[in-house]
Amino acid sequence: MKKLYVTGIGPGGMDDCTMRADRALAESETVVGYTAYLDLVRGRFPDKEYISTPMGGELARVRKALVSAASGRTTCLICSGDAGVYGMAGPALFMADKYPDVSVEVIPGVTAATGAAAVLGAPLMNDFCVISLSDDLTPWEVIEKRLRAAAAGDFVIALYNPRSRRRPRTLACAVKILKDAGVPEETPCGLAGRIGREGAWSRLTTLEELADDEQIDMFTTVVIGNSRTRVKDGRLITARGYGGEEDGG
Amino acid sequence: MKKLYVTGIGPGGMDDCTMRADRALAESETVVGYTAYLDLVRGRFPDKEYISTPMGGELARVRKALVSAASGRTTCLICSGDAGVYGMAGPALFMADKYPDVSVEVIPGVTAATGAAAVLGAPLMNDFCVISLSDDLTPWEVIEKRLRAAAAGDFVIALYNPRSRRRPRTLACAVKILKDAGVPEETPCGLAGRIGREGAWSRLTTLEELADDEQIDMFTTVVIGNSRTRVKDGRLITARGYGGEEDGG
Repeated sequence: MKKLYVTGIGPGGMDDCTMRADRALAESETVVGYTAYLDLVRGRFPDKEYISTPMGGELARVRKALVSAASGRTTCLICSGDAGVYGMAGPALFMADKYPDVSVEVIPGVTAATGAAAVLGAPLMNDFCVISLSDDLTPWEVIEKRLRAAAAGDFVIALYNPRSRRRPRTLACAVKILKDAGVPEETPCGLAGRIGREGAWSRLTTLEELADDEQIDMFTTVVIGNSRTRVKDGRLITARGYGGEEDGG
Repeated sequence: MKKLYVTGIGPGGMDDCTMRADRALAESETVVGYTAYLDLVRGRFPDKEYISTPMGGELARVRKALVSAASGRTTCLICSGDAGVYGMAGPALFMADKYPDVSVEVIPGVTAATGAAAVLGAPLMNDFCVISLSDDLTPWEVIEKRLRAAAAGDFVIALYNPRSRRRPRTLACAVKILKDAGVPEETPCGLAGRIGREGAWSRLTTLEELADDEQIDMFTTVVIGNSRTRVKDGRLITARGYGGEEDGG
């Protein structure tokens, strides 16, 4: 059976790549992905065929990977983070029936939410949700509904794609929705950008000041605490519920 | 500076462990964790000191790891999945101020939600939330509120700790709450148990039939689709929003 692996290499460089994903890359003859991520892999595996496609061309990228695998070359389609979280796994599986002799295997990776959480402390110690603020593929009304629901459920929230040049106001809109839904202005929040890469940065802020942070871009992960999130010694931590001093109580 | 690493080794065996976590284990003299997870690490690193603590003794485990690190032995505190998702990272950071010469570093891992998603297909391609049904540490009313909010937001839902011997009814209660909140009975769902280990299993079901599945236990991850989740060729896939046939449209 011809093989297509679909995997995320983690939020940063190859360090947060799993051993299973690394083995899939080692086994593959061809690696397909967005240019910036291919460069991270090339350092470790210089002797592969690399097929690079520009940002935004997701479906074309998936098709190229399936065509490569169908030609008999074991192929690995990569993205950052986890391929199953806003990634290439869905389109690859939806499109796979046109390539019946290709077996598609999805390999899980570290998604940006948990990568950012580790950099910031331990904000995802309790129930949380992950919401993308990009309205390229999801209508803004649906995003609004989800933000209100997240506030109603007192979830910790990890925001992906919080802001871009084309959408400079999305984060400010999201903050307003959360405040209107009753999330206190002083709620501790954390930002992590370029996790695990050159120029990595992170800082703590509050819901009140979040939208004013000018460094936030589409590669930043924003974590908004819930009612049990605290800042301790510069780390953002959500109490798990053990109670007592040892759990931030 | 004395060092304590806190890391998850992924949902399964060492295969889904990241290279960064693997390096932290290699560097450590002492590894602390729940017995079953230590056994997974021991195969790869036989010559460490292993400090094993029983299930449920989370705070004692964290204290032992901090004491070990404070004694000058580089120590790695491990759990399954990601240490920052219902894991040891929070207590370790909350308790670290009693051990001021220990530097605590959290290393992210693959959490069960994304591990299960990869086994099942690609159900987390759009906004999702992660909810634990264990009311050991979270009051059941809070869990209920979050389930209702998740339904209102049309989130894909990953449930952790769906059922245990002490809580045989929690999953059935959760399903009822979701149905009462308007989630259709025919909503596709997926189950994944013992991911990446001996005896791994997974299957698709529907919200209607979910609670009748007798194999579900506290180590099972349950994924409940949203309005855009489909079953195709035996895989659970949520449309990303590209539209058209290539996205399940």
